[in-house]
Amino acid sequence: MAKNIFESSDTVRTAQPLRHAQNVTLNGPLLLESGGTLPSVTVAFETYGKLNAAGDNAILICHAISGDSHVARHNAEDDPGWWDILVGPGKPVDTNRFFVICPNLLGGCRGTTGPGSINPETGKPYGPDFPTTTIGDMVEVERRLLDHLGVGQLVAVVGGSVGGHQTLTWATRHPGRLRGAVVLASSPRLTSQALAFDVVGRNAIRRDPHYHGGQYYDKPHGPGVGLALARMIGHITYLSPEAMSQKFEADRLHPREAAIEFEKTFSVGSYLGHQGTKFVERFDANSYITLSLAMDLFDLGGTPEQLAASFSHAQCRWLVLSFSSDWLFQPRQSRDIVNALIRNHASVSYCDIESDCGHDAFLLPDDFDRYGEIVRAFIENLAPMPHPPGVEKTSSMGGRAFFTNTGSTTTASWN
Amino acid sequence: MAKNIFESSDTVRTAQPLRHAQNVTLNGPLLLESGGTLPSVTVAFETYGKLNAAGDNAILICHAISGDSHVARHNAEDDPGWWDILVGPGKPVDTNRFFVICPNLLGGCRGTTGPGSINPETGKPYGPDFPTTTIGDMVEVERRLLDHLGVGQLVAVVGGSVGGHQTLTWATRHPGRLRGAVVLASSPRLTSQALAFDVVGRNAIRRDPHYHGGQYYDKPHGPGVGLALARMIGHITYLSPEAMSQKFEADRLHPREAAIEFEKTFSVGSYLGHQGTKFVERFDANSYITLSLAMDLFDLGGTPEQLAASFSHAQCRWLVLSFSSDWLFQPRQSRDIVNALIRNHASVSYCDIESDCGHDAFLLPDDFDRYGEIVRAFIENLAPMPHPPGVEKTSSMGGRAFFTNTGSTTTASWN
Repeated sequence: MAKNIFESSDTVRTAQPLRHAQNVTLNGPLLLESGGTLPSVTVAFETYGKLNAAGDNAILICHAISGDSHVARHNAEDDPGWWDILVGPGKPVDTNRFFVICPNLLGGCRGTTGPGSINPETGKPYGPDFPTTTIGDMVEVERRLLDHLGVGQLVAVVGGSVGGHQTLTWATRHPGRLRGAVVLASSPRLTSQALAFDVVGRNAIRRDPHYHGGQYYDKPHGPGVGLALARMIGHITYLSPEAMSQKFEADRLHPREAAIEFEKTFSVGSYLGHQGTKFVERFDANSYITLSLAMDLFDLGGTPEQLAASFSHAQCRWLVLSFSSDWLFQPRQSRDIVNALIRNHASVSYCDIESDCGHDAFLLPDDFDRYGEIVRAFIENLAPMPHPPGVEKTSSMGGRAFFTNTGSTTTASWN
Repeated sequence: MAKNIFESSDTVRTAQPLRHAQNVTLNGPLLLESGGTLPSVTVAFETYGKLNAAGDNAILICHAISGDSHVARHNAEDDPGWWDILVGPGKPVDTNRFFVICPNLLGGCRGTTGPGSINPETGKPYGPDFPTTTIGDMVEVERRLLDHLGVGQLVAVVGGSVGGHQTLTWATRHPGRLRGAVVLASSPRLTSQALAFDVVGRNAIRRDPHYHGGQYYDKPHGPGVGLALARMIGHITYLSPEAMSQKFEADRLHPREAAIEFEKTFSVGSYLGHQGTKFVERFDANSYITLSLAMDLFDLGGTPEQLAASFSHAQCRWLVLSFSSDWLFQPRQSRDIVNALIRNHASVSYCDIESDCGHDAFLLPDDFDRYGEIVRAFIENLAPMPHPPGVEKTSSMGGRAFFTNTGSTTTASWN
């Protein structure tokens, strides 16, 4: 089992192994797309509900950059999960009916092999020697995990942001393995502006003197300042300008109480300092570099033709959701995906959810009433069982887009 | 005369005093709005053209956060100025006709008293003891400089971004002192999102271990990494997403040649690393903190009523220009200024310039043909001399907005 170095560095010293996570070490080495090899990979994952005898009622949830396997609480006493609004008994991803699997990403720091894990060749954490990892590598690890669990064809893969990148990769690499793909707040590849923010965040970590070239695990301090700065930059990009105004304009000069070693002149500053400080307590800086680089390298193509070619082998039905105020993974980018799928005569439903919450909208309850039932209906339609009464089914219309957005149904392509 | 510590730190070690800058030490101390006092203030400034006998043909140019007094070249052999497109013989701000003055800002690092200047009380650079400085303080220094130069009523004050904040302050604090105000790419106050980026930049500087609490001037290294990170963040906000796509999408994976100690995986990364590295060679980190904080504290009000009250004493004519793709100082914010002026029955011309260049548009030649002549015509109309033939005059229409934007003329208020 991979070992995370939770105690030995500033960056992850208070993080704890997740209570409900199971671990499995995959058979054999993992050859990576970059050319590197990991001799042994352990995956931490959580499951909800029961796999049926046919092995065909499973839904895979892919987390985003700072997530983990704890997508939902397992019972009333459990810690909150990061997507409790979507996943649970009776929820749109209904754990009473589906076997839900959520693994920690390859390269992460909550149980799955990552830069903080012990490199068997040296007996020390990989640190900077952890090989460059791609979204494709993450999906390969997830595929092997499903094989291990006896899962056949998935009902669906569901993911937002980088989770959406994994979902897109599942549909294009393993077309026979899923009936549906639910892609939220994602993109065919990052914009140059989004890349730029990630680059600055990684620079902040790497140029923190406590980074020690990435081998900080046995040092008294890790690159906590750099990681906090990276997280602050990230947080600005996850919020919409409108959400920031609503949160901070009224008391802009009155910082909130926060035990932080960052500027507190403005309320927005105290908030960001708090977010950065909290993140350092639960996340490893090398994992942040690894995962953000994987995200930045993801690329299904920059032209409609390239995108259509990327999707040429996909067979599943699609639900694509964007959020109107998301400026990091813009609605336009989701529409590029949808238009490429339409070009390929795929069955795709799309909705741009009206929201002030920015990129984070897919994780927040604020606009969930606008998209939760869309996801529920889409999954109902994929499931092999009869759907319960009172739930409206989505339709696919012969290779055209069908918009479940209330009051706006069209079959045309648009930009 | 204030002394800048150009040689003793990473952050400004290669910066040189500006060749054409003059210096004057103001009479008496400067009482600051924060309550602090500067016992002696030296201003570095450059002038172009000649002041007439009446002292009424002067135009004051206010620079933005990273600018200096060298707004334009003084002759064909001179180094380029930062606003050569606008200022010079025959240019919209015509140095054949007007006496143009451009001072370095209070708190800056190109000759005017700032944190790198010697504190007469200690004999050492002020560093972190440099008092909190406001836009109002900068304007007070500029006012004293004009008194020293024998300038009476200005034809106009002209400024973009933080230069616009100074222009707004001139018009509200010294209404009898200017006939016109030209405010480009500015705002009544920063959005919470813009504040957030500045906070992260200042945190990057202050938490750089080479910051040494702000007293790094006699150390072998200054907080160059933190300052470079702050500049990289700034650069992202100065460019529009569209401009970034145009610059970097085609060769996103091919970094440009750059001698930088920052990540070069992506072309946009090599560009930002280069910009950050270059900035460190010419700018002082404490000045960056001082000036960005002054910008962040600027606030004419958050409601239409507060804004109208802020402008209640202004008497000048106004030209307000925004740039359509500027997401840092948004066109909406310029319209808030215009609407408040209309409410006060001020004479205001406004145009939102169609541009892909983001906040930087006001400094770039790309869209200059769309706004250069608007500035020329506005200034012609203010000037005490007959205007030359062939130049169209702007009009003001009895306290309503008149839009010089070709093809779009209206007198109504709008949002």
